[in-house]
Amino acid sequence: MSTFPRAYPMSGGDDQHSYINNSSYQIAAINSVGEKTRQCIIEKLDLPLNSDLGTFCIADYGCSIGPNTFQVVQSIIDAVKFKQLEDNNEKSLIPLEFQVFFNDQPNNDFNTLFKTQPPSSEREYFSAGVPGSFHGQVLPRNTVHIGHTSYTTHWLSNVPQHVDDKNSPAWNKNYIQCNNSIEEVTKSYKVQFTKDMKFFLEARAEEIVPGGLMIVLGQCLPDGVPLFKTCQGILVDTIGDCLMDMAKSGLTSEETIGLFTLPAYFPQFSELKTEIEHNRSFTIEIMESVRHPLEDIPLSNDFLISMFRAILSTIIKEHFGDVIDELFDRVAKKLAKYPIDFNECEKFVTYFILLKRK
Amino acid sequence: MSTFPRAYPMSGGDDQHSYINNSSYQIAAINSVGEKTRQCIIEKLDLPLNSDLGTFCIADYGCSIGPNTFQVVQSIIDAVKFKQLEDNNEKSLIPLEFQVFFNDQPNNDFNTLFKTQPPSSEREYFSAGVPGSFHGQVLPRNTVHIGHTSYTTHWLSNVPQHVDDKNSPAWNKNYIQCNNSIEEVTKSYKVQFTKDMKFFLEARAEEIVPGGLMIVLGQCLPDGVPLFKTCQGILVDTIGDCLMDMAKSGLTSEETIGLFTLPAYFPQFSELKTEIEHNRSFTIEIMESVRHPLEDIPLSNDFLISMFRAILSTIIKEHFGDVIDELFDRVAKKLAKYPIDFNECEKFVTYFILLKRK
Repeated sequence: MSTFPRAYPMSGGDDQHSYINNSSYQIAAINSVGEKTRQCIIEKLDLPLNSDLGTFCIADYGCSIGPNTFQVVQSIIDAVKFKQLEDNNEKSLIPLEFQVFFNDQPNNDFNTLFKTQPPSSEREYFSAGVPGSFHGQVLPRNTVHIGHTSYTTHWLSNVPQHVDDKNSPAWNKNYIQCNNSIEEVTKSYKVQFTKDMKFFLEARAEEIVPGGLMIVLGQCLPDGVPLFKTCQGILVDTIGDCLMDMAKSGLTSEETIGLFTLPAYFPQFSELKTEIEHNRSFTIEIMESVRHPLEDIPLSNDFLISMFRAILSTIIKEHFGDVIDELFDRVAKKLAKYPIDFNECEKFVTYFILLKRK
Repeated sequence: MSTFPRAYPMSGGDDQHSYINNSSYQIAAINSVGEKTRQCIIEKLDLPLNSDLGTFCIADYGCSIGPNTFQVVQSIIDAVKFKQLEDNNEKSLIPLEFQVFFNDQPNNDFNTLFKTQPPSSEREYFSAGVPGSFHGQVLPRNTVHIGHTSYTTHWLSNVPQHVDDKNSPAWNKNYIQCNNSIEEVTKSYKVQFTKDMKFFLEARAEEIVPGGLMIVLGQCLPDGVPLFKTCQGILVDTIGDCLMDMAKSGLTSEETIGLFTLPAYFPQFSELKTEIEHNRSFTIEIMESVRHPLEDIPLSNDFLISMFRAILSTIIKEHFGDVIDELFDRVAKKLAKYPIDFNECEKFVTYFILLKRK
């Protein structure tokens, strides 16, 4: 039996360890595809941008707490406004009204999201928070014109079956993630990922209007590359090693570690492609790898540790209790002693997918 | 210059002092008009309840953190579903999809609202939180089918001009509320209330579709009765007295108290009627006083103190710092010594208003 909560938001608040202050890697990718996103909206959005449309609705799925989400929705709005100008006779133009739905798990820190959003005087849209798992429908049928999600679809709806069961060949005993070193574990994760991508796409197909777009940005593995060979994979394995060290010091136990494994799966590019192609509701307008602007820059230990601390603190704390400071101190010391060699690491693929609702 | 924040939510969280656990007075009124609300929806809602309508949208303005709001929206949904069955041929009935917008100030505790809402498996609606002042538009034009608000419209968008200015005849020096004992203060509050009701109704007129309804439940004063003669008025004056006592003990200062006055105004019934009648967008279907079920029951000191603590803590803390425990201990002691005589007090009027969008 999994001891996991079904929701594991990024670190809330706005302190030094919060996601707000540790999401620059993600926004770098978002920015790098900004022009591409803009062009896609202008060329592919297949909707009449006039008063017949009613309110133009945008949803950001798995928005976390900002500031990235605010930047993304503003750039989508800018592109839609530009397209409206292009498509219509300027003289008779009635400005569109925009509504943005910020979606994330119910235990996401929506209070911080709402407090840090641009003030209403500077905002061109009506804002709403939508609590709920994006693996199910969270908005009514045919109400969303553009959906967006970035760095989210590797999160699973739950820990796959058996990977925390010590009697199963799929037990992920010594690892806290699916790092692809145990075939049975990878298989188990893949089954869950396939289900979850299906649920995700089916839910979006309900919500998005025909002619509307779904933009998906994220990271996956290059074909043939296991996670344990990437620098992110090595970092999380190091966190696992430090937990094992803490077990030896009595600060946690091997049994507790044996029950813990992250509900995240990074597919290889071709696997992801297969899952996307299985859907019957969207045409695949674009599915390609893009260059992450930080791809060739060796990331400092501090940067990586801060980023992963913001991403993983909530879920680690839920399972292990208040070990976060101790754990990440140990990770920092271990990496200072045994630095990750970026030149030796395999790189993640950053992908960009544009789907159009049939 | 006012030192007030422009938003003053009810106490968040779910501890003994939270609004969640101290809102039974309000829910008693909501329950008492449940059947009336249901009948109003069945008789007055002037919309085609079929698939042409799209999603049926309900907004609760100033929803706070529950549980009252969840009960209200469920009863509205039940009534709409009943009406749909009555209006249509059952065989060809396509169930409506509902979306509920929970509106309150951006610093309302939406996290608690979302965590305590009925789980999605038991909920018949898609849920969204809408951060923003209901004195302005918070949802797009023509998107709401039924709006609701209860116990909110006495809150002003800000402290009226001059009442915290010691050089003005409208200075509310010795009081922390507009208790109607100083005419200039009452005038100043009334100007603000008139503005705010206008903004409130204009914003709702934008949001609510023609044929849609706005339900307003709240409290006002009977004609000719000043607030300082009601038990609620006496209680808040007692809180003010205790702050003055604390100033004498050096725990706050008279100057600090002189700058503080609550941004709430209870109009007399005829004043409220005038403001509602000024609007040009809604027909007034019902505007009447209703019996509050606790009206004739002497409320205990503990009950009253807990209720007002949940309502006022945030705003008092914002101005005076962390004085809440000390202050409400003093209030309890003072009321134990000088109890409020319920038989001598004037009673509030509970009112029920039903507006239909023209």
